[in-house]
Amino acid sequence: MERNGPVSVSRPTIRRLPTYFPIVEQARHEGQDWISSAQIATALGLESIQVRKDLAAIGVAGQPRLGYPVTQLMQAVERCLGWNNVTDAFVIGAGHLGSALAGYRGFERHGLNVVALFDNDPEKTGTKVHGKDILAMSKFPDLVRRMRVRIAILTVPDEVAEKVARRAVEAGIQAIWNFTAAQLAVPGEVIVERMDLAASLAVLSSRLVAQRARLERSDA
Amino acid sequence: MERNGPVSVSRPTIRRLPTYFPIVEQARHEGQDWISSAQIATALGLESIQVRKDLAAIGVAGQPRLGYPVTQLMQAVERCLGWNNVTDAFVIGAGHLGSALAGYRGFERHGLNVVALFDNDPEKTGTKVHGKDILAMSKFPDLVRRMRVRIAILTVPDEVAEKVARRAVEAGIQAIWNFTAAQLAVPGEVIVERMDLAASLAVLSSRLVAQRARLERSDA
Repeated sequence: MERNGPVSVSRPTIRRLPTYFPIVEQARHEGQDWISSAQIATALGLESIQVRKDLAAIGVAGQPRLGYPVTQLMQAVERCLGWNNVTDAFVIGAGHLGSALAGYRGFERHGLNVVALFDNDPEKTGTKVHGKDILAMSKFPDLVRRMRVRIAILTVPDEVAEKVARRAVEAGIQAIWNFTAAQLAVPGEVIVERMDLAASLAVLSSRLVAQRARLERSDA
Repeated sequence: MERNGPVSVSRPTIRRLPTYFPIVEQARHEGQDWISSAQIATALGLESIQVRKDLAAIGVAGQPRLGYPVTQLMQAVERCLGWNNVTDAFVIGAGHLGSALAGYRGFERHGLNVVALFDNDPEKTGTKVHGKDILAMSKFPDLVRRMRVRIAILTVPDEVAEKVARRAVEAGIQAIWNFTAAQLAVPGEVIVERMDLAASLAVLSSRLVAQRARLERSDA
């Protein structure tokens, strides 16, 4: 079963894969060698057909009546998401959010290891957070090269995000996980994945505003 | 210009609105009374037609040659996103992420005020983080009622998320901002907006895996 990597796997499928993993892991833990799409679907509130399509997309073949081989399924998820190969990352911006992310245990399970944080604030540099060094931004380019770090987690203020991202890319960063509200203009080969708190909060708030308006109308 | 609330505004439009605000605010700060869709579009790397559609959706009318009235535009965004009416929220789960969110200054600008945090860990309860109380989860239902809080920010471990969400809804919470990987089954009238770190990281990682595979093939 030779595959050319997950280039063709759709974004919605990729976003669901992390949720499959604990279900399958649990099944293995309980001694199951095989798991059905229905079992996964029920646990996650999905349709079985969705699960079967997702697993086909990452190259896991099911067997009639048996389901999917648990070990192969886990390996396929790990391979697709790069979890079999822990990737080092630097956090840029050692504020509340950056510090929290540096201490977030969940990342290591997902193949990401935060090595250090960078900040421009001399009050912060030289200190540690969650056991990780906060270093001056001036040391960033040299350390990216020496440690071959390719991922930067960007948690700086919005207004400097663009400038900092440009410096990170010049230093050799190939992927930016962007926690700012800034839309980054970076060269096409650089991967940017946005985690936009403000946009998510906007959706929540607007739905709450709409709900309130509906309730007021029905009271009238 | 009477409107029935933002029920009909699409999700992509709502996600873009928070980014419009600082551009328009800056224009007002510089003494502009009017702003063109082109000016907003250029600042954000969007197409002008996109901006015009978004502003039409929230009920702001442009004038030929003048553009959009700055003050009305800002008010329309604030109204649609509920920023004109600060909403109180409780954080459930005072771990790294919950604590970071409680201290995140950006929320207040976006109409969200974190009042307190809740946790089950007796080592945490009774202490403060960023000046906000960490309270025992047993006090949650009573405080939701007394303070009429409607939003819960959920940052508990994935495996208890479902159970905690159910308790929150029973206590009267109407909207959950879900930072866990759990897919919550809640009554239909409860608003759930998911902020899925694991899914976002999965997309980033899989793109990096694919990029590496492409580079290795082109080296071969």
